Amino acid sequence: MPIYQAPVRDTLFVLNEVLGFERYSNLPGFADATPDMLEAILAEGAKLAENVMLPTNRAGDMEGCTRHEDGSVTTPSGFKEAYRQYCEGGWMGLAVPEEYGGQGLPYALHNAVGEYMASANMALLMYPGLTQGAIAAIHQHGSDEQKQTWLPKMVEGSWTGTMNLTEPHCGTDLGLLRTRAAAAADGTYRISGQKIFISAGEHDMADNIVHLVLARIEGAPEGVKGISLFIVPKFLLDDAGNPKDRNAVSCGSIEEKMGIHGNATCVMNYDEATGYLLGQENGGLKAMFVMMNEARLGVGLQGLSQSEAAYQNAVAYAKERLQGRSLTGPKAPDKKADPIIVHPDVRRNLMTMKAWNEAGRAFMLWTALKSDIAHRSPDETDRQTADDLLGLMTPVLKGVLTDKGFEHAAMAQQLFGGHGYIEEHGMSQFVRDARIAMIYEGANGIQALDLVGRKLALNGGRAVQTFFKEVGDFCEENRADEKMAPFTKGLKKGLNDLQAATMWLMQNGMKNPDNAGAASTDYMHLFGLVVLGYMWAQMVKAAQGALANGANGSGSFYETKLVTARYFMERVMPETATHLARLSSGAETMMALPAEAF
Amino acid sequence: MPIYQAPVRDTLFVLNEVLGFERYSNLPGFADATPDMLEAILAEGAKLAENVMLPTNRAGDMEGCTRHEDGSVTTPSGFKEAYRQYCEGGWMGLAVPEEYGGQGLPYALHNAVGEYMASANMALLMYPGLTQGAIAAIHQHGSDEQKQTWLPKMVEGSWTGTMNLTEPHCGTDLGLLRTRAAAAADGTYRISGQKIFISAGEHDMADNIVHLVLARIEGAPEGVKGISLFIVPKFLLDDAGNPKDRNAVSCGSIEEKMGIHGNATCVMNYDEATGYLLGQENGGLKAMFVMMNEARLGVGLQGLSQSEAAYQNAVAYAKERLQGRSLTGPKAPDKKADPIIVHPDVRRNLMTMKAWNEAGRAFMLWTALKSDIAHRSPDETDRQTADDLLGLMTPVLKGVLTDKGFEHAAMAQQLFGGHGYIEEHGMSQFVRDARIAMIYEGANGIQALDLVGRKLALNGGRAVQTFFKEVGDFCEENRADEKMAPFTKGLKKGLNDLQAATMWLMQNGMKNPDNAGAASTDYMHLFGLVVLGYMWAQMVKAAQGALANGANGSGSFYETKLVTARYFMERVMPETATHLARLSSGAETMMALPAEAF
Repeated sequence: MPIYQAPVRDTLFVLNEVLGFERYSNLPGFADATPDMLEAILAEGAKLAENVMLPTNRAGDMEGCTRHEDGSVTTPSGFKEAYRQYCEGGWMGLAVPEEYGGQGLPYALHNAVGEYMASANMALLMYPGLTQGAIAAIHQHGSDEQKQTWLPKMVEGSWTGTMNLTEPHCGTDLGLLRTRAAAAADGTYRISGQKIFISAGEHDMADNIVHLVLARIEGAPEGVKGISLFIVPKFLLDDAGNPKDRNAVSCGSIEEKMGIHGNATCVMNYDEATGYLLGQENGGLKAMFVMMNEARLGVGLQGLSQSEAAYQNAVAYAKERLQGRSLTGPKAPDKKADPIIVHPDVRRNLMTMKAWNEAGRAFMLWTALKSDIAHRSPDETDRQTADDLLGLMTPVLKGVLTDKGFEHAAMAQQLFGGHGYIEEHGMSQFVRDARIAMIYEGANGIQALDLVGRKLALNGGRAVQTFFKEVGDFCEENRADEKMAPFTKGLKKGLNDLQAATMWLMQNGMKNPDNAGAASTDYMHLFGLVVLGYMWAQMVKAAQGALANGANGSGSFYETKLVTARYFMERVMPETATHLARLSSGAETMMALPAEAF
Repeated sequence: MPIYQAPVRDTLFVLNEVLGFERYSNLPGFADATPDMLEAILAEGAKLAENVMLPTNRAGDMEGCTRHEDGSVTTPSGFKEAYRQYCEGGWMGLAVPEEYGGQGLPYALHNAVGEYMASANMALLMYPGLTQGAIAAIHQHGSDEQKQTWLPKMVEGSWTGTMNLTEPHCGTDLGLLRTRAAAAADGTYRISGQKIFISAGEHDMADNIVHLVLARIEGAPEGVKGISLFIVPKFLLDDAGNPKDRNAVSCGSIEEKMGIHGNATCVMNYDEATGYLLGQENGGLKAMFVMMNEARLGVGLQGLSQSEAAYQNAVAYAKERLQGRSLTGPKAPDKKADPIIVHPDVRRNLMTMKAWNEAGRAFMLWTALKSDIAHRSPDETDRQTADDLLGLMTPVLKGVLTDKGFEHAAMAQQLFGGHGYIEEHGMSQFVRDARIAMIYEGANGIQALDLVGRKLALNGGRAVQTFFKEVGDFCEENRADEKMAPFTKGLKKGLNDLQAATMWLMQNGMKNPDNAGAASTDYMHLFGLVVLGYMWAQMVKAAQGALANGANGSGSFYETKLVTARYFMERVMPETATHLARLSSGAETMMALPAEAF
């Protein structure tokens, strides 16, 4: 049975000591987020994750969801009750404005807790996760009436949400979608078509399901310009706003998947179902992207969550499993063998995961804070800068943290040897669950293209210049600090590689767009390394500050941070050079062969 | 339903044009291996793989094996029949000496065909694969009587073999094993204990199962020096040598695993079972290593096989799936979208797999040929040199090709988007099946340790010096050849990195053995890159030779080789620098933290 302990201490370190949360007390919802309050909320979230969500995770994997003949779907044992407790604890609306029943607290705090929940049970958290995305889309694009109608019930969790984009023949390329919307006389629409891969599309945990569906209004332009977004509830509401008649939408089947068995992945059939236009006619893609962008941060968080959970189990096993002797002589001479944590190659794996996870957590919270600033700051310049960075970082966070989430889950599994391959220990589940995060909400190749093809050049490269300046300034400011030098040196080298790669892209991507595509994934990972290196440098700064102020020394939380940061700089940062070398070789050999030569 | 076509043309290129198989016609079994004969055998093997083994692969995954109350195990539908055809085709004994019913053909040819079979159905091929390992161990360590008793039936496939090493508390560290052997008056032994993770431990495809079991004879020394190897058949034989009485060995349960569901992974209980000592008393580990070394090459081959099979399916999908438009303008303007193979990032994945697979195949066959030379050459120097390289390359081949097998299976799956994550397309199975190869027959961390801790230093580093000289000479000899220069340059750079890493290990590994452990995995992968770079340089040489001799030019097999080789040198080889940088940072940050700090 896998273990999990929410890393509350580490989250608090990032929020309070690295990001300086109290500096933002002028933002709505932040005044309440004092260090004491943060700690109390995180501890409460940790309890729910550890005691309620975690115990249902294995059952979710083993039982999966069941679709019955009437199209209804049953979730695994315990999911319903755990979901109820999640809702009752107010977690659904933690960051939703109070006027819709939420608590209006920072989105960064919502994500901090979200990591714990996803580590404990990723498949289960997807039900509220998709609901929160739908809440955001309705909140931003809905009419007042729509907000009043749908949001309060969704915030209390009695109704859940979904996003319906994919069709059998189109996923990435939504311009191809065929689902139709016919205008009815009463201003509503009749939606017809088939959607696939609809997470949480049908289940037994809520009284209603609010589907957000992309469809093409009859007569609309071809391609992405003719797509509109609709609210299509499972049950239509009566005049009092309560679910009444069944709408013409149903779950045709659920998929057999590699993982996240606890989440029902549905084929949804719409047969002249009643739908309500959300936002502008033909403005569906833009409206859906509100949901999608938030979902991408959520998926990046899933990558981190699986990496952290798998890491914790690998640590426990490495301390306990006795096998072989240390290369430098027995460390547990009273036992038949040493615990495998004495072996350098075992530690290499553990340190790699630790160094990524802690920086990944900082990256995730730093980005979420940008979202808070972008949406809540009274200062326009601050809002714009934060929004620039949020847009720039979204594909990096999604792509890099999910690629690493899967890699680390497999790395943790590896430490278990054969025991990791059998399902009993749960290590296989981390690998199988983590795998989806690289795919959905835009496969990682699409994230990389979004970064090089769109985000880099936006507003004349304003966002990336802001980031380069911030990191460059940090290195410059700390150059004279002897204790910071080993860290800023590695970071600066990484930044130089990233800037060289950016320059290469500007010079070669325009000439031949295939060069940009050919460089995209390496560029995204190079970018991620520099961001995480920057997170480490900031964490080191905070840790050294605390040590200078008399915090516990050797063996302490802060000393451990310094060692882990050095590991990152020595063992992880050097990868920037390979990414730069690779991407600088251009598209030629990649595109040279005719399709038949493969 | 996954597709698969055995790459016969490519295998022939390696055997005939790169390795120059005909140069070895003086070796036993090689005289028959003329180009025509090779082609005929490979084509026959391809047919079996594609038409018989492939169609059972999905059923194997979905049905898995079933253990019944009486301890018997049923294999998935179709396995029995496919296995029968494998045996009837004479594939079990392809490389086994004729006196035991084999065909005495080259081991390299056996492995060439083995790749096809493993690509088509890895779980199924494990049954004969383990049998072949057991045949090798009995052949090398058995008495004449034992060989006469067991081998002919195993070679014809009516009896299969297993290897029984692991126990619940010990896998890597066999010194801890507890299974006991008590000497009986008649010279046999009574074996008692429990073995776990026994692949093909029980099934319904053979009349008898010949377990090779490691156990400790009562009174034997502690640790690995007191381990002996025993033959423990499922059925004891009557005087005529036919299976008769059931021996006291049984399958207690089978494991639920992440993949290779078609293979029964058994808990085997020995309860005073009758066993026959194989080889010397207390010489069990050495005898088992005959089996293990061959098995490691076989597992490396599995990594390659899954990478190749997954790649072929990704290629087919990339040519067929229409989504988005080429960055340089529509390539299929008559269709609603272009096939995704037009996208550079899709091609990056395909080219990466292609470049690894083709070099991996050459590496696998080159290494198997060393095994042939080591065992069959009349020349002692040739035998020794080949044996040196075989020993050196075994951990590299196993570790690198299986790490890449898993990585590429996931890479191929990624190209399918959400369709890759559902089980229907079979891409998940490649990932789940490939995963085990990194673990069994010595987890890859153990391979890396075997390389740096044992193989490098053996005989004063004779093997590694031989390899460095061979590669260095190749670069030197081809330096003046303008057409070879782009390839030898990259290879030479990689070789320099590898030599620098080796030097670093010599200087720092002695001082502190943790430095060797800390460097091991990076060193193994650095080594693998140089070996594969060397394979590419040799393939380029052969391809250029063929082109100079008037072979088909543009778009041809040989031109494609040159493009793929360039891709490898530009996009893959640069990784050597990162491995060198990483490992040169030493063990300090890795070992600095106390266990509690994780």
